[in-house]
Amino acid sequence: MDARGKLAVVAVGGNALIVDAQHESIPDQFVAASKTAHYIADLVEAGLNVVITHGSGPQVGFILRRSEIARDEVPMVPMDYAAADIQGAVGCMFQRVLQNDFRKRGLTRQAIAVVTQVVVDRDDPAFGSPDKPIGSVMEEAEAKALAAKQGWLVREEIGRGWQRVVPSPAPQEIVELSVVEHLVRAGYVVIAVGGGGIPVTRHHDGDLEGVEAVVDKDLASRLLASGLHADLFIILTAVEKVAVGFDTPNQRWLDSITVDEAKRYFDAGEFPAGTMGPKILAMIEYIESGGHCGIITDPPNLARALAGETGTTISAV
Amino acid sequence: MDARGKLAVVAVGGNALIVDAQHESIPDQFVAASKTAHYIADLVEAGLNVVITHGSGPQVGFILRRSEIARDEVPMVPMDYAAADIQGAVGCMFQRVLQNDFRKRGLTRQAIAVVTQVVVDRDDPAFGSPDKPIGSVMEEAEAKALAAKQGWLVREEIGRGWQRVVPSPAPQEIVELSVVEHLVRAGYVVIAVGGGGIPVTRHHDGDLEGVEAVVDKDLASRLLASGLHADLFIILTAVEKVAVGFDTPNQRWLDSITVDEAKRYFDAGEFPAGTMGPKILAMIEYIESGGHCGIITDPPNLARALAGETGTTISAV
Repeated sequence: MDARGKLAVVAVGGNALIVDAQHESIPDQFVAASKTAHYIADLVEAGLNVVITHGSGPQVGFILRRSEIARDEVPMVPMDYAAADIQGAVGCMFQRVLQNDFRKRGLTRQAIAVVTQVVVDRDDPAFGSPDKPIGSVMEEAEAKALAAKQGWLVREEIGRGWQRVVPSPAPQEIVELSVVEHLVRAGYVVIAVGGGGIPVTRHHDGDLEGVEAVVDKDLASRLLASGLHADLFIILTAVEKVAVGFDTPNQRWLDSITVDEAKRYFDAGEFPAGTMGPKILAMIEYIESGGHCGIITDPPNLARALAGETGTTISAV
Repeated sequence: MDARGKLAVVAVGGNALIVDAQHESIPDQFVAASKTAHYIADLVEAGLNVVITHGSGPQVGFILRRSEIARDEVPMVPMDYAAADIQGAVGCMFQRVLQNDFRKRGLTRQAIAVVTQVVVDRDDPAFGSPDKPIGSVMEEAEAKALAAKQGWLVREEIGRGWQRVVPSPAPQEIVELSVVEHLVRAGYVVIAVGGGGIPVTRHHDGDLEGVEAVVDKDLASRLLASGLHADLFIILTAVEKVAVGFDTPNQRWLDSITVDEAKRYFDAGEFPAGTMGPKILAMIEYIESGGHCGIITDPPNLARALAGETGTTISAV
């Protein structure tokens, strides 16, 4: 497709910054971010307007573990505050590596990370059944003591240990949507909705309040893509294409599917909840809200996927 | 003065969010931020365009202490990453409390925090004599072991204990100045240069690189105020007015001083380095760079100071 002037929302996984357990340090994360940023900068150089969103699983995990370990000496970090932390820290990481990349290419575009809150509904059923494990993996006794003290829900993951679980409600509204839109129209490459956005609810008096939850970054990115009427919604993940029958003798890579096919596969349980599930769901929501073209691929194949040579494309028909 | 349409840069101290050692939790910080935000929202309601900057001493201290305590289990946090963290977390705090305050007043203005880097010079003499204490206060043995392992410089503060010291170089350039300017012109209330900005240097190839340093928030705020050609540069602190002969029988509150008087008092050592010194220096730099009107006061007296009824005003003549 001719990219010039089109708007793409590109969602990058938080795991994209952590290559393996031996490369978890912040400098190593910068190196990993540079590689991903380079592929995205290719799109910008090709004339695309880009909004970048990013996950934060491992980084929020680090913040919460530090907070738990140091809890006797330093005030603990609420979930919304942890998400805001990450929007600053990971946002800055992408901002800086993109700025460096743009300058080397002679591009005058500027990358900018903005703090973004996402409203969730207090009545979302997720609050009744928190199921997203976060923070330290603990022994049963420590987990239960901390749960009693902090009012947490903790759960045992078989073979792993005890961990806090929080709700992952559906994102309803991006509070700073107009700012992102304004900056993109002015030519900035915007980094937004980091970590799925800072989770807030609307109090009955209208005030925004932080809430102990995490918002799925693919679903929040979708809400942003729809709100911006983005021409393209791209999710970058660890695989070049989406598969059905994954890891079975019947595995088949998907090149191009309609939203109806995506729903059929989704309903048939083809995509696990923790991995490809939310990505496909986000793509379905995007197309059903009037989106044009969804793409799932990995960072190195981003430009080729945009040229229709690889990746999995999801469209209305 | 008639505020309508004028641009003010308002610098808020990081200590403004921490009332005392019994109120250090994040929810308590939100309450404190709300109060300060309310006074600033008064200016916005009066028709002023406002850019807010904020310190982060206590908050960065918490991040570094968590990082040090958890260092055997979780990657440590570099200084630039800690500053970025705070821009997200404290930025979000101000953003949210301002948004709530604006809505209650029926104002359609929106607050937005942007991630801001500040360039410092590798050859700044501060790198030769780091003197800004940060992070945990430790016993000598622990401090020296950590210094050897991390390449830190540590120092004993008499009567306090051992602590890491980092350089506090002079800010040279605000990387995202154009973004702040763009958003302010479009009517947004921007939160920027949090914690004095994320410290970076320019590598010889032109790349921005994080650096282990902290930038003084008043000096960084001044650079922003000058760069934006702000009509007003306001520093909010713990006192209603600046004094000379502070805490002596000759103490005298200052209502209005010229930049030359400010320099004379500054050179005479009237203002301690850790407290009022950088604020006066920032005011001198602001006026000497063509700024119109500098004000130092405390948050509750902000509107009265703007009306010329209190505070200390610094101007060219």
